[in-house]
Amino acid sequence: MDTRTSEVALRIEQLRDAMRALGVHACLVPSSDPHLSEYLPERWQGRQWLSGFTGSVGTLVVTLERAAVFADSRYWTQAAAELSHTGIALEKIPTAAATHYIDWISAQLQPGQSLAVDGQILGLALAQQLRGAMQRAGIQLRTDLDLIERIWPARPGLPAGQIYEHLPPQAVVTRAQKLADVRAAMARHGASHHFISSVDDSAWLFNLRGADVDYNPVFMAHTLLSADAATLFVEDGKIDAALQARLSADGVRLAPYGAAAAALAALPAGARVLLDPRRVTLGLREAVPAQATVLEAINPSTLAKSRKTLAEAQFVREAMVQDGAAMCEFYAWFEQALARQERLTELSVDEHLSAARAKRPGFVGLSFPTIAGFNANGAMPHYRATTASHAVIEGNGLLLIDSGGQYLGGTTDITRVWPIGVVSAEQKRDYTLVLKGTLALSRACFPRGTLSPMLDALARAPMWAHGLDYGHGTGHGVGYFMNVHEGPQTISKAVPDATMAMEQGMITSIEPGIYRPGKWGVRIENLVLNVALATPENNQFGEMLAFETLTLCPIDTRCIDIELLGAENVAWLNQYHALVRERLQSLLSGAALDWLLLRTQGI
Amino acid sequence: MDTRTSEVALRIEQLRDAMRALGVHACLVPSSDPHLSEYLPERWQGRQWLSGFTGSVGTLVVTLERAAVFADSRYWTQAAAELSHTGIALEKIPTAAATHYIDWISAQLQPGQSLAVDGQILGLALAQQLRGAMQRAGIQLRTDLDLIERIWPARPGLPAGQIYEHLPPQAVVTRAQKLADVRAAMARHGASHHFISSVDDSAWLFNLRGADVDYNPVFMAHTLLSADAATLFVEDGKIDAALQARLSADGVRLAPYGAAAAALAALPAGARVLLDPRRVTLGLREAVPAQATVLEAINPSTLAKSRKTLAEAQFVREAMVQDGAAMCEFYAWFEQALARQERLTELSVDEHLSAARAKRPGFVGLSFPTIAGFNANGAMPHYRATTASHAVIEGNGLLLIDSGGQYLGGTTDITRVWPIGVVSAEQKRDYTLVLKGTLALSRACFPRGTLSPMLDALARAPMWAHGLDYGHGTGHGVGYFMNVHEGPQTISKAVPDATMAMEQGMITSIEPGIYRPGKWGVRIENLVLNVALATPENNQFGEMLAFETLTLCPIDTRCIDIELLGAENVAWLNQYHALVRERLQSLLSGAALDWLLLRTQGI
Repeated sequence: MDTRTSEVALRIEQLRDAMRALGVHACLVPSSDPHLSEYLPERWQGRQWLSGFTGSVGTLVVTLERAAVFADSRYWTQAAAELSHTGIALEKIPTAAATHYIDWISAQLQPGQSLAVDGQILGLALAQQLRGAMQRAGIQLRTDLDLIERIWPARPGLPAGQIYEHLPPQAVVTRAQKLADVRAAMARHGASHHFISSVDDSAWLFNLRGADVDYNPVFMAHTLLSADAATLFVEDGKIDAALQARLSADGVRLAPYGAAAAALAALPAGARVLLDPRRVTLGLREAVPAQATVLEAINPSTLAKSRKTLAEAQFVREAMVQDGAAMCEFYAWFEQALARQERLTELSVDEHLSAARAKRPGFVGLSFPTIAGFNANGAMPHYRATTASHAVIEGNGLLLIDSGGQYLGGTTDITRVWPIGVVSAEQKRDYTLVLKGTLALSRACFPRGTLSPMLDALARAPMWAHGLDYGHGTGHGVGYFMNVHEGPQTISKAVPDATMAMEQGMITSIEPGIYRPGKWGVRIENLVLNVALATPENNQFGEMLAFETLTLCPIDTRCIDIELLGAENVAWLNQYHALVRERLQSLLSGAALDWLLLRTQGI
Repeated sequence: MDTRTSEVALRIEQLRDAMRALGVHACLVPSSDPHLSEYLPERWQGRQWLSGFTGSVGTLVVTLERAAVFADSRYWTQAAAELSHTGIALEKIPTAAATHYIDWISAQLQPGQSLAVDGQILGLALAQQLRGAMQRAGIQLRTDLDLIERIWPARPGLPAGQIYEHLPPQAVVTRAQKLADVRAAMARHGASHHFISSVDDSAWLFNLRGADVDYNPVFMAHTLLSADAATLFVEDGKIDAALQARLSADGVRLAPYGAAAAALAALPAGARVLLDPRRVTLGLREAVPAQATVLEAINPSTLAKSRKTLAEAQFVREAMVQDGAAMCEFYAWFEQALARQERLTELSVDEHLSAARAKRPGFVGLSFPTIAGFNANGAMPHYRATTASHAVIEGNGLLLIDSGGQYLGGTTDITRVWPIGVVSAEQKRDYTLVLKGTLALSRACFPRGTLSPMLDALARAPMWAHGLDYGHGTGHGVGYFMNVHEGPQTISKAVPDATMAMEQGMITSIEPGIYRPGKWGVRIENLVLNVALATPENNQFGEMLAFETLTLCPIDTRCIDIELLGAENVAWLNQYHALVRERLQSLLSGAALDWLLLRTQGI
């Protein structure tokens, strides 16, 4: 047992001591915070601090006898490594949203025993599901305990990132207009008040951005709206006086971050509060007084911000040109360095690619940690190289790079796989089948309102035909200079609901993959925009949507089995490369331009 | 107002009188019976009797001021015609399972008013959903009233069809084995008892068949199982002494049909009753005493009977040969009669096709009413010709025939579209796109356990690409000498749940379509069997399934746009026609054989 594993074992024992002291038989530690965010401030990295599992999504359950982390296939290899010898088992679940831990807890505990989970970071919808299951199992659910707080001596405080304004021209819709739109939606719901906890919703609504977590330009805040008042609950000192004045000119007043629950508790009798059970915690829901009515529905802002305006889409196209230029600069350097037999590692890839992006106008930061995985490392969909552990790029194989940037005019997310040395026939076959999946979905048309999960099989079918599949979703919504993972739509096996209806202006990733643990991984990802398609059939069959591919970067053609890819896909790819060349060449010169011209040649 | 419409208006007024007398403000009349069957005995055709709408699925809601029938797109044209001038509005809903009428009721009634629905024909799962919605709307839900009974003077009694045994060799699994399997599943659920209301589950479990409704060889009965007892609640006189003796030899005792509720009420305290909330009514659920525990899960028999055994699948293949031979006999006659310029109508098609099936060994009856629709009539997916209204088949156009048979060794369901005279380019395009959809899904492979709704888009994508779609599901499960519509799997936009996991042995229809109201309709349907696919990838990516096309009948090639169909589909079709020829030719002679050879020529 090394120090890491012994440290984890010690913390789990301290947790169990606290559980015994409180008469609790199991403790559930989700990846969550008071805003149900994906990227968590350090203060809410309790699951990682306790278990040592560093994946961004995963749930820890600790009983007095056993402990397990529930993680989806993106993390299986990584979690198995990080949890080894800690005494914590890895429970493999099909999707990040799967709640197998609920059955696991029901099976572990006896009727009459109790489960503790911090209600302040427990989503309301999940809480309702958990409560039902525990009731059926006769297990008491305690949501009033924050056990982590009791055993984490040096627990970090609240993040203090400065908040700034997202300004025109990239901020296309004014704060006043967004407030008016959301209030109109409140009226349609018959709501007198609307409470928002999701940080990207508050950032979108007020045209503000922050730096409380890495990669997502958001800040920790809650929002309470009524027909005539708007209160932003945010930690003191994060918004300077000038910005405060601009906000108050739009009728937005500030209140202390910690005062949100009290403000809900002070709602007038007869208030009708609209809140999103998937985006508000149980703790804050329970702050609403009994004399008020809660209306549960998806945040109007979540729907609105998913539908980019025409002007926003145009800024995203420009950001894609900048991002594509950075990719070309990087790959041109990379191939030359490789030819010069320079010693290249996954870390130097990250370093040079990030530097290339940093030079682009409008660049703010990365949209997520770069995934640069060579061969076996590429088989871990969420692999991250570290100084302690990373591969040297030498010999033969496939280099997978999944990266993205935050620009004032949009958020990017792109995955490419590049051949190193000699590529085997099996690698070419995997590469071609993944590309077939990416293109099959990219080329699809579908009726407006189609529930996004319905499209998932279109990307998988070409792989299914060869007995292959992948364990992660096919695509996620993407924000506008905002979170790289944004709802409501998701192209995956998620249970479809009406909020996932595909609408004009939504931006989604298409990223199928094939992973050969211990050998290599292939994933090819573009971002696509939902655009309306005018067809003569529209009258009878309703409006059709198609995907406009936004991402602009060559897709390697040396790994393609042209026969297997098929003529229609080859034609699509040649057309795409002509477009990439046309859009990018004016920004590039020298080696980068040469590289663009070389890698966008038709096949 | 003709007599039909005035009669309907009168009955609606009688219903309203009864509602007023009981202080009820709305009445919900679903298409349902005490077994939640699709095909209803006349006694439970109250919705049809009241509204005049003869579609097999649809929900009637009557308030004191308004009345509406909620029907999915299969019935829009038909319902609009049948409801015209009755004062009953047609509310169009996207799918048969859609519950838009719940919102409609919530909007129509004031808080404090009451809605009546007969709990004896209301599914438990639907009741739970309805109760929640009415609570939120402040509307009182009364499930203790059968208003139809009060106003339907000559309401038919219980059906009295004789019950007979499904015997070997076609009955492959013995009654004793099925009882043992279901009891094993009960044990896994920790259930002491299991109550079954769905008629096809009881018929499957006991290897019995009946004749209480048209087309489905089932009988009205409930079943109560414990570890050592099995009671079949069935009307007196439907099972003769000899069969009673054979049943009792397997430990099955009979009880009066009406005694089921009393038997539930008499369950011992501490009993743990497994029942399927989608397949048991609220009325019978409420008969379970409070001291008993109800375990809600899908009927184990519903899962078991959906997975046909290898021997059952072999009998289905033989039934398909017989059914295909009948189709050839019919089409050979049809094309000759057409050439002879005989006067042919949609009714004579039905008559001759049914006669051709009736001659086949093992034939028991039709599996649903034949749909023979010429041109505009083909645009109504559930059209049924009547002596009063049917088309003469003459001139140019498309004849759609959707038909099927019940055989001792399986149930068939096939749709073909045949050209009459000259076929337009637009008709050929529609035909080819529908065939592309049928083949795209027929050729798909997918991981075992894939939730069937995920596959729906594969059949739609070829049509979506041309701005076309269809309003019904793509496919339904099919029974084994049982209901032609059988769960749990459905290839449609249904919300996926774990019970819909695709497993080896399931039989499903693939039947996309394109409908041009007032012009023509195209639908091409085959039944397919889930077969396991051995691939070298299986270890890493799990077991893959593929579809074996079971239906054996030529698909017209004269309407095909070969260019649009594509080379891979043409190859598949030629292979299919070679198989059809090989399997059917030994059963045919003369004109029928000539026709088979002609229509199975390669293209």
